Amino acid sequence: MSEEKYYLCSMNSPMFDTLKQLPLFQGMDTKDFNSLLQKIRLDFVNYPAGEVIIKADSVCSHFVFLIKGSVESSREGSSGRFIFHEKIESPHLIEPYSMFGATGSYNREYRALEECSLLNVDKQYLYSELGKYNICRMNLLNILSSRTQQSDRHIWSIDEITLRDRIIRLIQGFSDIQYGMKRLIITMENLAVLMDTTRLNVSRELNLMEKEGLIVLRRKEIIINALEKFQG
Amino acid sequence: MSEEKYYLCSMNSPMFDTLKQLPLFQGMDTKDFNSLLQKIRLDFVNYPAGEVIIKADSVCSHFVFLIKGSVESSREGSSGRFIFHEKIESPHLIEPYSMFGATGSYNREYRALEECSLLNVDKQYLYSELGKYNICRMNLLNILSSRTQQSDRHIWSIDEITLRDRIIRLIQGFSDIQYGMKRLIITMENLAVLMDTTRLNVSRELNLMEKEGLIVLRRKEIIINALEKFQG
Repeated sequence: MSEEKYYLCSMNSPMFDTLKQLPLFQGMDTKDFNSLLQKIRLDFVNYPAGEVIIKADSVCSHFVFLIKGSVESSREGSSGRFIFHEKIESPHLIEPYSMFGATGSYNREYRALEECSLLNVDKQYLYSELGKYNICRMNLLNILSSRTQQSDRHIWSIDEITLRDRIIRLIQGFSDIQYGMKRLIITMENLAVLMDTTRLNVSRELNLMEKEGLIVLRRKEIIINALEKFQG
Repeated sequence: MSEEKYYLCSMNSPMFDTLKQLPLFQGMDTKDFNSLLQKIRLDFVNYPAGEVIIKADSVCSHFVFLIKGSVESSREGSSGRFIFHEKIESPHLIEPYSMFGATGSYNREYRALEECSLLNVDKQYLYSELGKYNICRMNLLNILSSRTQQSDRHIWSIDEITLRDRIIRLIQGFSDIQYGMKRLIITMENLAVLMDTTRLNVSRELNLMEKEGLIVLRRKEIIINALEKFQG
């Protein structure tokens, strides 16, 4: 891990444009954004491929922005029956919904898939500065509310009753981002337990889904190359 | 419905103490709170028992605080197979998670269970005023984040595999508030469909739960008097 600290981010740097693309800063006036960046301490950190960026259950003390490269998040089911992996591309703010509320710690582990750049900004400090910009405060509320609305739609979509619908619903529910690559590490037996059906039924449905190009099956692993293919 | 409009709320009124109990205002300095109340227009509205306070899918244009009495929220499953009801006691801010984000409309219908008093405050206006108080902004972020974390725990609790665990998980998932009275209007056949099991299995489990005092069964209705009994 190599660390560089800047107190100033030039308006002409490509970093400036990348940061401005983040939902948290969207709609912000360029002058205001420049003035915000000059006031907060920006810690840029680079990670080589394979390195763990954030450990599960570690405290959210900073806003962590992925600004270059891609990472994979992972989370294990409480029974140890499965592990879910999700690919995340830059630019991305990592787990905004874990930064406030009772928890205050990360749900998932994050590992660099290639060389990555991250920007860490002290949580309390950025939060205070953001408070001065009406649009940023609204962006943050919108990010958190949209996430809740996504979970809510998931919980109320219980009516999808075919086995395929239930497998898709499971994977969508685990996904922070409703598109892109996901991997579910699970045996057919354990997936059958989660779906409350037989191993044979699960195996038959997964093989059909593979033939249709929706998933790729590996030993104890289901790969979804594009979750958006499941929509509609 | 009777409507009274005040521009000022006295520090000595019981209303002042009730409002101060709301999570949105918790931790606020009495002087600040008084100054906030004097700046915002407070519309108090009374509803008799049985009257609909908010219709599902109506636009969230106001912060709606239930300050006296109790209401019942209700929501129908998309297939029309079930309706879920939840009792809400004052003081309570109604559906904070629907006020921002892409939706901007209420998920549920709210009906007065007894004579109720509500306080409506214009969303944009209160939001701007709240922005001036660091603790209120943080309270709102905490409310939204806690709700997301609650949904997240629900989604990842898929490992509970007994039929009883799955019925309890379903009801907890539908509940905005993780305690108090809930009613699920559903036939045994339809609950069996949702649980992907037989009507006989569902009927047997529900009757056991009734014997243990966890639920009360009525025709096409499951009544949970205290959701907190399910915990742990």
